[in-house]
Amino acid sequence: MPTPACDQIGAGKDEGEASHIMPNLGNATALTCRECGNSVELGPYYACAECFGPLEVSYDVKGVTRESIEAGPHNIWRYKDLLPVPPNVAEIPNLEPGFTRLVKADQLASALGLSALWVKDDSGNPTHSFKDRVVGVALAAARELGFKVLACPSTGNLANAVAAAAARAGIRSAVFVPSDLEQQKIITTAVYDGTFVTVDGNYDDVNRLASELAGEQEDWAFVNVNVRPYYAEGSKTLGYEIAEQLGWRLPDQIVVPIASGSQLTKIDKAFQELIKLGLVEDRPYKVYGAQAEGCSPVSAAYKAGQDVIRPVKPNTIAKSLAIGNPADGPYVLDAVRRTGGAIEDVTDTEVVDAIRLLARTEGIFAETAGGVTVGVLKKLIDSGQLDPSLETVIINSGEGLKTLDAVAPVAKPSANIAPSIEAFRATGLV
Amino acid sequence: MPTPACDQIGAGKDEGEASHIMPNLGNATALTCRECGNSVELGPYYACAECFGPLEVSYDVKGVTRESIEAGPHNIWRYKDLLPVPPNVAEIPNLEPGFTRLVKADQLASALGLSALWVKDDSGNPTHSFKDRVVGVALAAARELGFKVLACPSTGNLANAVAAAAARAGIRSAVFVPSDLEQQKIITTAVYDGTFVTVDGNYDDVNRLASELAGEQEDWAFVNVNVRPYYAEGSKTLGYEIAEQLGWRLPDQIVVPIASGSQLTKIDKAFQELIKLGLVEDRPYKVYGAQAEGCSPVSAAYKAGQDVIRPVKPNTIAKSLAIGNPADGPYVLDAVRRTGGAIEDVTDTEVVDAIRLLARTEGIFAETAGGVTVGVLKKLIDSGQLDPSLETVIINSGEGLKTLDAVAPVAKPSANIAPSIEAFRATGLV
Repeated sequence: MPTPACDQIGAGKDEGEASHIMPNLGNATALTCRECGNSVELGPYYACAECFGPLEVSYDVKGVTRESIEAGPHNIWRYKDLLPVPPNVAEIPNLEPGFTRLVKADQLASALGLSALWVKDDSGNPTHSFKDRVVGVALAAARELGFKVLACPSTGNLANAVAAAAARAGIRSAVFVPSDLEQQKIITTAVYDGTFVTVDGNYDDVNRLASELAGEQEDWAFVNVNVRPYYAEGSKTLGYEIAEQLGWRLPDQIVVPIASGSQLTKIDKAFQELIKLGLVEDRPYKVYGAQAEGCSPVSAAYKAGQDVIRPVKPNTIAKSLAIGNPADGPYVLDAVRRTGGAIEDVTDTEVVDAIRLLARTEGIFAETAGGVTVGVLKKLIDSGQLDPSLETVIINSGEGLKTLDAVAPVAKPSANIAPSIEAFRATGLV
Repeated sequence: MPTPACDQIGAGKDEGEASHIMPNLGNATALTCRECGNSVELGPYYACAECFGPLEVSYDVKGVTRESIEAGPHNIWRYKDLLPVPPNVAEIPNLEPGFTRLVKADQLASALGLSALWVKDDSGNPTHSFKDRVVGVALAAARELGFKVLACPSTGNLANAVAAAAARAGIRSAVFVPSDLEQQKIITTAVYDGTFVTVDGNYDDVNRLASELAGEQEDWAFVNVNVRPYYAEGSKTLGYEIAEQLGWRLPDQIVVPIASGSQLTKIDKAFQELIKLGLVEDRPYKVYGAQAEGCSPVSAAYKAGQDVIRPVKPNTIAKSLAIGNPADGPYVLDAVRRTGGAIEDVTDTEVVDAIRLLARTEGIFAETAGGVTVGVLKKLIDSGQLDPSLETVIINSGEGLKTLDAVAPVAKPSANIAPSIEAFRATGLV
């Protein structure tokens, strides 16, 4: 593990000189075990030394107001006082993710029979997925902790985000993906010119290799492995932004896609923090989870009334959600049950239909994960699990351009004609 | 031609009742011929009845201040008082384009030997190109002018923008493209489920068909044909945003890609307007133009010292710039010569190298048009035509995900390995 230091990753430093400098991570004070509550100092740790439970960042936040946040930049750094990042984070070159559109989706609401619906459209991020948020926070923390390389195992969106963020920051990236990844995701990672390795195996194989490397390469920050406690905090910004963009209030209910489950639990954490800080009114809200049927271990546990997640082998077109053994699954069950929400899953056919419905009604082209969320919203309404008279927010976590294959069989032109008005008239489309 | 009316496109109206209602296009007052100066009332006109010259929107702007603009939304509608749109434009459902990042590109500047460089990154728009700006303005004006369908001929980016904007607005779109368009651009247009016709022919054939249809289909607004004067004004927002994001001042010089040439002339117009309104200091700036060698009619005329553009048959990977007979070419020559800039062109190989340079140094993955602009910037510096000690802005007009084929042959992984640490060590990449 590297020596914590205040200078940037990549800047040469004398190790003896730097060894006593503590990382400056703003209002973050410690890492606390989610299971046993044991606390350790801020450092490159991700599992509790007492019980091996996952560590989470704790804070001592004072003096944050709506006005202090609104005076910040139009990206996630307006919430820097609530994140494990140094106070000058916005001044260090980064991709400036976040503050994406919250779209009032009246036509989609009408199609689904909802009274009020908003789409948080995270395809507007720099590499067009919510991963830019978590990578932005991981990079800022990793610099402070003295890491020199930004790394990850990934199936696509995270690979893009890590490679781009490292390029912008002027540091090395090391990205590992399964070798059968779609060519388009290979290209959009390789173009940033970092270290980029394809691995003959599935995502589980790649993930295991990354975990082994994280134990050996002491100055490599694998964002979703050895700096995961910091990385995961980035998803809180989705919750902060939704509340601020609604005029500093919480929605009645929210539907969130589940991969590892981290995004859902962090949005819930963000809402709780805003209540505690007095930035929003303390009122009940419901959190719903969305999975694809071909990878629905959390949905299955929810429906069976169980607390334990039974791992599955994923088989769905929603590859960015295809985590068969989701680390935060139990915490997702806690949040959903505590708030009175539910978890549902939809078939790949329903995912494609939902992508098309969102595109047709709101002009938003979502990746398959967005289709899962819209499809689950529909199913929750149809099955009476979600009250359509309450104000609802859904998350679109990524961009349709990255999962074109999913809609290619059905997104076709209306007609093909010769270049003449007569040919066009003959189509009956006039 | 439709009857001007204040109600929305698609809303049923009694024609007799609506016939005396004038369109409410904010501070816009008339359409004025660029050639003879003749003025006509605001309406669905695009060519001067006197001399057939192109019409341009004139305004009577009063009371616009930095503060009034800064109080507006974070999209192009903060400049609504300087556009031909109704005062309530921001409240009508639209894609909310604009206010994209202006990135301080220190690493790219260093690589090119520039003292200060900014990239205006328009890939952050809703459908990931600057076309969302012009389509947003065209849609708002078309509603006011009583049109019922939003249409266009296109080779890609415009097709995406029109289909998405119409879906969001709840009106019909009609998009025409060459049938040999890349499959990815077909899908990203078809998914919005408008009328979408592929035409057996090249872009010139499609454009001619669209012009004929514009003369026959009286309630169809072909954004880049019969409502072009309004549409083109949308590009001014690039100039306004650059000045505002620089802290209300103009850069020393700017490099802009040339397709029809409209974007370049409108950025120049925006700078002139800001000076006249007293929103920025009146100081000299230089405007440079960028073309691909395989479609460089404006660059050729500039270099030959001519005023007339000689049409060419395009042959370049920069398809979004491949207009062989650019309508605004002569006005581009005027602006560049008046301000002391220059026009250059680069080969397809230089375009690909420039895309990779921008990605590697700043984490921005540009489409081929962005590669043209970065490549031309380099060539202008190397040839001594652009002073590297002056502050420079360049435009990235679109997203690399839409032109993956251009970089596919060179954007490759570093290595492919078996899933083991030993296999990774053997690559020498540790």
